[in-house]
Amino acid sequence: MHFKLAFIGFGTVGQGLTEILLEKKDMLEKKYNFSWSIVAISDIIKGSVYDESGLDMKKILDIAKSGKKLDDYPSGIKGMDSISTIKDTNADTIVEVTYTDVKTGEPAITHIKAALNVGKNVISTNKGPVVKQALELLKLAESKNAKYNFEGVVLAGTPALNLANYTLAGNNISGFKGILNGTTNYILTRMEEGMSYEDALKKAQELGYAEADPTGDVEGLDALGKVVILTNVVIGKKITWTDVERKGITEITIDDINKAKSEGKRWKLIGSAKVQSDGSVKAKVWPEKIPLDDPLAGVGEATNALTFFTDELGPVTIIGPGAGRRETGFSLLIDLLNINRKLSG
Amino acid sequence: MHFKLAFIGFGTVGQGLTEILLEKKDMLEKKYNFSWSIVAISDIIKGSVYDESGLDMKKILDIAKSGKKLDDYPSGIKGMDSISTIKDTNADTIVEVTYTDVKTGEPAITHIKAALNVGKNVISTNKGPVVKQALELLKLAESKNAKYNFEGVVLAGTPALNLANYTLAGNNISGFKGILNGTTNYILTRMEEGMSYEDALKKAQELGYAEADPTGDVEGLDALGKVVILTNVVIGKKITWTDVERKGITEITIDDINKAKSEGKRWKLIGSAKVQSDGSVKAKVWPEKIPLDDPLAGVGEATNALTFFTDELGPVTIIGPGAGRRETGFSLLIDLLNINRKLSG
Repeated sequence: MHFKLAFIGFGTVGQGLTEILLEKKDMLEKKYNFSWSIVAISDIIKGSVYDESGLDMKKILDIAKSGKKLDDYPSGIKGMDSISTIKDTNADTIVEVTYTDVKTGEPAITHIKAALNVGKNVISTNKGPVVKQALELLKLAESKNAKYNFEGVVLAGTPALNLANYTLAGNNISGFKGILNGTTNYILTRMEEGMSYEDALKKAQELGYAEADPTGDVEGLDALGKVVILTNVVIGKKITWTDVERKGITEITIDDINKAKSEGKRWKLIGSAKVQSDGSVKAKVWPEKIPLDDPLAGVGEATNALTFFTDELGPVTIIGPGAGRRETGFSLLIDLLNINRKLSG
Repeated sequence: MHFKLAFIGFGTVGQGLTEILLEKKDMLEKKYNFSWSIVAISDIIKGSVYDESGLDMKKILDIAKSGKKLDDYPSGIKGMDSISTIKDTNADTIVEVTYTDVKTGEPAITHIKAALNVGKNVISTNKGPVVKQALELLKLAESKNAKYNFEGVVLAGTPALNLANYTLAGNNISGFKGILNGTTNYILTRMEEGMSYEDALKKAQELGYAEADPTGDVEGLDALGKVVILTNVVIGKKITWTDVERKGITEITIDDINKAKSEGKRWKLIGSAKVQSDGSVKAKVWPEKIPLDDPLAGVGEATNALTFFTDELGPVTIIGPGAGRRETGFSLLIDLLNINRKLSG
């Protein structure tokens, strides 16, 4: 079927998706009967543009990459804000990729609710809304006969959520453990090679993995958000930010690394949750020494990995990228193809 | 929706699926709107029984497990052969789990064609038909508006085919490499611990992993069939049995194992295929020394693993069980839930 998309936010992830859609246009039509036009974009810095018959996205990408404003686009309606772009355009599906505070979930939550309330589908890579309100937003979507998909909020385009919720359907998933943060895994990989924590962090910052203030990564906050998401969305138990025990990697020394090595183990920052016998969930982000015969031990560099504990199959693990402009943009295509599949029957 | 199933063959895999269906009846109805009855069973040894209103499967399991014949079932029509069970019952979906020769694909191919030709869905764990005629059978299914699903033919219930074909949709998959045979991986794991090849094989036979004649496993023939399947079904290139280079694990010595260890590597029997620049495929089953920072290196015991090489995400790996009565039975539930999802829209 044909999708009319509106982008709320047009940073690297939105541009990544756009590149994929342009390059794979023919393949997507032929193989999945999926076609698209992008009718509107609203970005807090770049401005906004709307053309109900579809924008020329090659031109839009040129404008965005040259740092110009969308007002430079030669036609279309300019100046619509994000809410009117969601509600007052002919878009049927909203791509919510604004810069959003992971703690408050705003402005993404407001955008997502506005879209679902008028029955429009939402796809989004923003973690904040899923951490804070996953179950409420999914319920709202269902009541409005719309879809809210967010494959990219854990492991970027590596389809961990779809694996759990569709491909492993029929299993009871009672827990998970994973390497959910690429930056800390990169740092630990360098330390395995003998680099100090400080040098490894500096290198991660040079490569753009870690931000100038690395707290969110190295103290385990990013991984914590993903543990909350997975517990809510995969295990189906409602927990919040404060229900997760947390310790980062800042206290791990080269001595610790070497000691683990001599025991045939490797330090990894593990995010995990497990349903207890009383039905409650024990969730944590904690550095753990993983034996070499655990698949997670072999996951190096910035790669992510996630093991689900299932009743029918035992542990099932998926390993893939956890970040990246194109990889995260791709997660939105997974979301679109899922909606397409459901609506096509 | 409601499925009316007929089992052609009723060995361990069919019984495994039956147990899962019985235990999870309520959950499957509530969570996936999936309900079932089993109206017919035809087994070359156990005989056959048909009741259009559904069989009491607890009674059937008791009969099967006590080694009795299905004639002992207190009601229903007895004596129908496999083809009339497929064609002349009110079943809408055929569970093809006969004992089938992997080389000829028979009698499964005959059963599958008979079902598809009358527009009935087929789910099957038999490798032979997929090795020999995957693309033809899928085309036949499509032309008859029926489904032919076979998740269990590689990695048992670990959803490798669904991961590749649905969850990773939108990627171009240009190759794969994997640990596709659990028996050889079990033997290599024991050899890593210092056991000789002969003792490890004996232990695998004691545990039921390896057959009395272990040739199919240790010479790489089982893995070869899976390479053919994955190349045809995931990469979409038609190859056959003779297009795959093959070497088994019988020549690997403890010396080889130790030498690899000293290089930070592990021997694994790897099945792989890769699209070449001229569009042809290079496929092989060959023992390879895998470095410890490759996720496949950490896969021990009888576990299976498969890495897909994708254009958007790079390598994506799935790890899980590759055999087992219940695990393989579960692959058929994955197939059923997929058909249910497609037909429910």
